[in-house]
Amino acid sequence: MTTTRMRAEIAEQPVALRRTLDALLPAVPGIARLAERTRQVLFIARGSSDNAAIYGRYLVEAHTGRLATPAAPSIATAYRRRVDLDGVLAVAISQSGKTEEIVETLGWAADCGARTVAITNGAASPLAEAADLALVTEAGDEIAVPATKTYSTQLAALAVLGVGLGADVDPGDLRRVPDEVARLIEETESSPALAAMVAELAPVSGAVVSGRGIAFGTALELALKLKEACYLHAMGLSYADLLHGPIAVVDPRTPAILVAAEEGPTLPGTVALAHRVTGAGARAYGIGGGEELAAACSHALPGPRLPEWAAPLGLIVPGQVLVEALARALGLNPDLPRGLNKVTQTD
Amino acid sequence: MTTTRMRAEIAEQPVALRRTLDALLPAVPGIARLAERTRQVLFIARGSSDNAAIYGRYLVEAHTGRLATPAAPSIATAYRRRVDLDGVLAVAISQSGKTEEIVETLGWAADCGARTVAITNGAASPLAEAADLALVTEAGDEIAVPATKTYSTQLAALAVLGVGLGADVDPGDLRRVPDEVARLIEETESSPALAAMVAELAPVSGAVVSGRGIAFGTALELALKLKEACYLHAMGLSYADLLHGPIAVVDPRTPAILVAAEEGPTLPGTVALAHRVTGAGARAYGIGGGEELAAACSHALPGPRLPEWAAPLGLIVPGQVLVEALARALGLNPDLPRGLNKVTQTD
Repeated sequence: MTTTRMRAEIAEQPVALRRTLDALLPAVPGIARLAERTRQVLFIARGSSDNAAIYGRYLVEAHTGRLATPAAPSIATAYRRRVDLDGVLAVAISQSGKTEEIVETLGWAADCGARTVAITNGAASPLAEAADLALVTEAGDEIAVPATKTYSTQLAALAVLGVGLGADVDPGDLRRVPDEVARLIEETESSPALAAMVAELAPVSGAVVSGRGIAFGTALELALKLKEACYLHAMGLSYADLLHGPIAVVDPRTPAILVAAEEGPTLPGTVALAHRVTGAGARAYGIGGGEELAAACSHALPGPRLPEWAAPLGLIVPGQVLVEALARALGLNPDLPRGLNKVTQTD
Repeated sequence: MTTTRMRAEIAEQPVALRRTLDALLPAVPGIARLAERTRQVLFIARGSSDNAAIYGRYLVEAHTGRLATPAAPSIATAYRRRVDLDGVLAVAISQSGKTEEIVETLGWAADCGARTVAITNGAASPLAEAADLALVTEAGDEIAVPATKTYSTQLAALAVLGVGLGADVDPGDLRRVPDEVARLIEETESSPALAAMVAELAPVSGAVVSGRGIAFGTALELALKLKEACYLHAMGLSYADLLHGPIAVVDPRTPAILVAAEEGPTLPGTVALAHRVTGAGARAYGIGGGEELAAACSHALPGPRLPEWAAPLGLIVPGQVLVEALARALGLNPDLPRGLNKVTQTD
């Protein structure tokens, strides 16, 4: 099997996650202090980092009772309009910490009255230096263009952020994440379902990727990876949004990939969606969701044995393995998708 | 030419918009009173209504200086977690006013401390009755499943909401919208570019639809329409997000449709994106953006001659005409997409 940088970096995640958790869990008291006079969170991010922010929003809202929503960076960078951000904790996420749009928007948030946090893999980056508090992930250098270990370590940093904001969760669950990720890589790579899914996905031009609540960001991230590394027309949607129109595109040539934690309030709806997709004559592929989702799908990859709040840290991993294998099956080099650079500059 | 309900309802928009503006502009003082003790807006919506909310967020943030962000309904309906919404104006948008998820989430917002507004075409609907203030659109009955006149009248209601929140705009601009929409329908239907775009889009399986800032919601709505009525794998993205990965999918078989107002800070980036797409050997189709965007694209449909803040009320119209014509060219009935009902129930 050809070894790509992407595959190597997927395999580095258990170590990267352990280092990141060791580095960031001690920051919990500092996060709590910074957040004291804030009442809500505003995430500033693009691309994979924005998908990580979706996890952050559900974690913060469902487990701390604070409003947590995404920012619109163009208000800062294109419209240059001040917005009242008193009482807001602005959290900017960027792998490199160098994307000017994100650095500029975090500066705008501070000017508008927000306290600021940076989540980045760039220790001495402009973003880390601009923030009141920097949560620096310990992913090491990432060479492949599709983010893998920088994404999962961003999720770890967001989990720590949630703990710092007083989430009603057991932070000890995070210590199980590195081993779970190692197990998921091994089990996915040796799963007959992986080969079957690659064979069935190779000829299709489009797919729907769906999840909800805490798993919604995972669906968006897997859709992004399928677009950038496999050039698949992958549409990431919450299952609620899917039913409001886009379900029409699902047909025998447009399968659905469904992601879910093994427990939690959005699992039954995800299982019901799998039945609806297969009932309409289309293929449904599951990632996670336990035996219930696997039984409802045409093929399924294993998911993490973690409580719902921490599940996204592992749930993306089988998807990463799938994307890397599918890209190679299509004769593409996942490390260097056409038209992309490692640091994206947008204004 | 076959007459579909969708086509008839597209043509009813000038009248629907005039009636809606007549009905809602007098509500401005009431909106201002309700919003007095609030400092930010939270939109609650799904599907086309959620795309309308995107317009609302950019209008409110760029022109009133209030934070305006989308809610995550599953926090209310699946996670059943209270969130601190003191000082929040919650705005729920639903064509029918009957989608239980949206009604329930607006009730949750009120329980969490928010003031509430409903934007709906259902005058006596549960949503209208649940809200502190109902802005009822006057679109009349909409039979075709893809929303057209209920969407554009939602935008009109959001424009009125923005005026009520003190937007630094001239409300008189809204009075020009109905005639502009009538002109756009006529000019689009007789445009040689429409026939060319239909012919070129008919054989493709996927497309990227992109816009930014005030036009971002238009891009998402056009992508949704292409998915539900034409079963096209349409991916709606802001151009900033597009450059963070998904640009890789744009190729000679995956065109880009770019939407923009005739003026405003996001127009130059949209024009630059058109050059990048055509430079990569792919097709770029423009809607609006004036002569500059048209010149950069393979084909272009006209856009509204309206200031940027009001442009989305007309900008979707050429896209609606395109979707209806493309569906018919594909032998599909746009009034009844497979797998969809007019009132979507999600939990």
